[in-house]
Amino acid sequence: MAEEDDEMQYTILDQAIAARDGSALLVTAQEFHYADLAHHYENLDDEDRDFFLKTIGPELATDMIGELPSSLIEEALSHFKPAQLRIILGNLSDDDRVDVFQVVSEESQRRFFSLLGPHDEQLTRNLLKYAEDTAGGRMTTAIGRITADMTVKQAITVLRRDKDSAETLARIFVVDEQGRLVGKVRLRDLAFHPWPTPIADIMEDADESVLATVDQEEAARMLSKYDLIVLPVVDEFDHLLGVITYDDAMEILQEESTEDIEKLAAIGGEQSELSYLNTTVLSHFQRRVFWLVALAFVSLASGYVMYRFSDLLSGAYALSLFLPMVVASGGNSGGQAATMVIRAMALGEVNPGTALRIAWKELRTGILLGFSIAACMAGCILLFLPLLTNEMEVHKIALAVGLSLAAQVISSTLLGALLPLGARSIKLDPAVVSSPSLASTVDVTGMVIYFSVAAMILR
Amino acid sequence: MAEEDDEMQYTILDQAIAARDGSALLVTAQEFHYADLAHHYENLDDEDRDFFLKTIGPELATDMIGELPSSLIEEALSHFKPAQLRIILGNLSDDDRVDVFQVVSEESQRRFFSLLGPHDEQLTRNLLKYAEDTAGGRMTTAIGRITADMTVKQAITVLRRDKDSAETLARIFVVDEQGRLVGKVRLRDLAFHPWPTPIADIMEDADESVLATVDQEEAARMLSKYDLIVLPVVDEFDHLLGVITYDDAMEILQEESTEDIEKLAAIGGEQSELSYLNTTVLSHFQRRVFWLVALAFVSLASGYVMYRFSDLLSGAYALSLFLPMVVASGGNSGGQAATMVIRAMALGEVNPGTALRIAWKELRTGILLGFSIAACMAGCILLFLPLLTNEMEVHKIALAVGLSLAAQVISSTLLGALLPLGARSIKLDPAVVSSPSLASTVDVTGMVIYFSVAAMILR
Repeated sequence: MAEEDDEMQYTILDQAIAARDGSALLVTAQEFHYADLAHHYENLDDEDRDFFLKTIGPELATDMIGELPSSLIEEALSHFKPAQLRIILGNLSDDDRVDVFQVVSEESQRRFFSLLGPHDEQLTRNLLKYAEDTAGGRMTTAIGRITADMTVKQAITVLRRDKDSAETLARIFVVDEQGRLVGKVRLRDLAFHPWPTPIADIMEDADESVLATVDQEEAARMLSKYDLIVLPVVDEFDHLLGVITYDDAMEILQEESTEDIEKLAAIGGEQSELSYLNTTVLSHFQRRVFWLVALAFVSLASGYVMYRFSDLLSGAYALSLFLPMVVASGGNSGGQAATMVIRAMALGEVNPGTALRIAWKELRTGILLGFSIAACMAGCILLFLPLLTNEMEVHKIALAVGLSLAAQVISSTLLGALLPLGARSIKLDPAVVSSPSLASTVDVTGMVIYFSVAAMILR
Repeated sequence: MAEEDDEMQYTILDQAIAARDGSALLVTAQEFHYADLAHHYENLDDEDRDFFLKTIGPELATDMIGELPSSLIEEALSHFKPAQLRIILGNLSDDDRVDVFQVVSEESQRRFFSLLGPHDEQLTRNLLKYAEDTAGGRMTTAIGRITADMTVKQAITVLRRDKDSAETLARIFVVDEQGRLVGKVRLRDLAFHPWPTPIADIMEDADESVLATVDQEEAARMLSKYDLIVLPVVDEFDHLLGVITYDDAMEILQEESTEDIEKLAAIGGEQSELSYLNTTVLSHFQRRVFWLVALAFVSLASGYVMYRFSDLLSGAYALSLFLPMVVASGGNSGGQAATMVIRAMALGEVNPGTALRIAWKELRTGILLGFSIAACMAGCILLFLPLLTNEMEVHKIALAVGLSLAAQVISSTLLGALLPLGARSIKLDPAVVSSPSLASTVDVTGMVIYFSVAAMILR
């Protein structure tokens, strides 16, 4: 669909809602993908939402609710009567249904449970046992299961029964009588093999699987690394519980990247599931104010160092020219190192066990960076500072700036690499710990290094 | 597989390589997923690589080469003789083959072309026409294609022929006589419908597709948004050219996130496809030194402001206590705002057209942040500064710090939001432009604001 067409469709949708024209709205809404409807729903006000949901009805609403941000789900469901809620909750795929139960109030949970059939209720209660951010909390149980002693024909018969409820038939899993995972078959192998072929002849090993208690990020990384469409989730006895699908993996990886990016910028709290513009000013404020105030207090330490060295500074004004540069270079080089290490950890490339190798690599990188930048700056000072001031011996300033700059960059680079590793080794989040503690530490060390070196050389 | 098993397998692999024990190596290597082999290959030295590749042979090597970082592909292929290369190049899926041709030298390209059959050569030359980072450059052409006038049985016959070459049969596309995309069928619908059913009866509309010239990131976002396994790629006349698959989308989204994170930390250049520890110190150095030196020069501007206001500072030492805090708060709040806006843009949530709404939201957020932090700091100064110094009237300092802090946070928040929007509206990369230009601008404005306000109030 071309972009302009899209825009026009949205306009028609909005007009139908504004005019309370039910039939026009229904026709237009059916033209949209439900993910787009969910996205548009965010922008409507309460009355429009009510009209919108009641018009599109429970079937289309079911698809849309699976795509809504968590914070809107309870609100959206509140527009429906019990009879419609029963349809919606029954139609939701089991993993989407668990998501709903995970985000609504306890009271709604009780009410929703009373609307489920006994089978769905049992299933939902079982899935709710797994923490939201584990493989078990994200899996779907609606998968094709067959046993190795079936023929292709029997397998097709069994699967045909599940064909509409199974979330994916891209991989069909073979289990033994105890429900333990023993292999997998591709749908294409069923479609293209003669019906009497035994499943045992065409099944492959199911090499990859995860424990239900494993972190969702680890499961997503496995899907991504091995290019899997589905990853089987098992319990400790290898019983097949469900699967994580590629689309969940994509969502998880995106969420985790956003989380890391935000933490590196000292933004706190849960990321909003609403889009940027639909997040309230108050919520933007709340996620930023804590770190902003905390970091402000921490930077008083730098101020204190500067205050203590005021005499030195007022004795040689030219020193103030280079103070911000020395301090900032530490922040920049430390930030670069921390970012590289944090991203490498997020991609599963390094771990605290390799801490020494990382430190050694960053130390050498830091030395190269430190001496390059020091040589460059000292050279410029020797060339250009005489044009600005005759206050003192220029070569002494060049030496002081060069030395302190090198020391600051080398120490900051090393610190930037070690902080995230240290944080993780004591089970803290590397991205949260590193960014603020790095910035504040490096500012203070920069000032101390600069003033101490300058005091030694200039006196 | 449990982690310890994994570790042990790697040890056995390494031992087999070290002992030059071909049969042990072959047996162990076949236990691994080729993605793991590719990952392990990185860590071997040149002689070990040669032995490793020659032992596992062209078939297993083909799978592994599709997973190697670009920078290692040419090297890996150089270990094979022409006869083996012919097998590898022929076995590669068409999109992996194009990736190989995109990264090797022109000389190797010519040599590799001479080893391809005429069909593969033509196909590869066609695919090479699309830029590497477009949908066309990432697509695979090995897909199931049928026409609407076939029956299910005819379709299965056609697809059975392609069954091993087609990268995915999760979605089968229906084209007309001119090869234009008219619909799609799911493999399960073929498997579960009676053989005489006409395709026209069971096919669905192919709602989503992208132009081959579209940026790969946009294609990946569509796959993610609509939870697609494959997204058809078409030319401007709607001819079906190929598909982008979910695993490509995952890879693209991960790459783009890494890119954004690195740019925000002022790390330049192409991201290394090698893992962190396998990237050389020199290459780490090269990606960081440019911005580090550039930012150092830029921060001379802050130094200059400080130098100009040296008199004021030496007249009231207590001012230096709060200077780093005012400056740093601007950097932090500006960085938070920029990160939120850049991430929202990366997720496709905002665009320059909504710039005014974003600015308005950030202005209000900035005002809330600015006044909270100012009130907090001014209060603390009134309470605690008298304990430290009697140098001057404490309430004047509290007023000066509070006012400049509020002004600095508000202006930096707004600037942090507007810089990425401005960068994108003139087609520059928001993440590259914002981070350095923001840091430097905000440092200078912070100093100017602080000293000007202080000068006004204290004089």
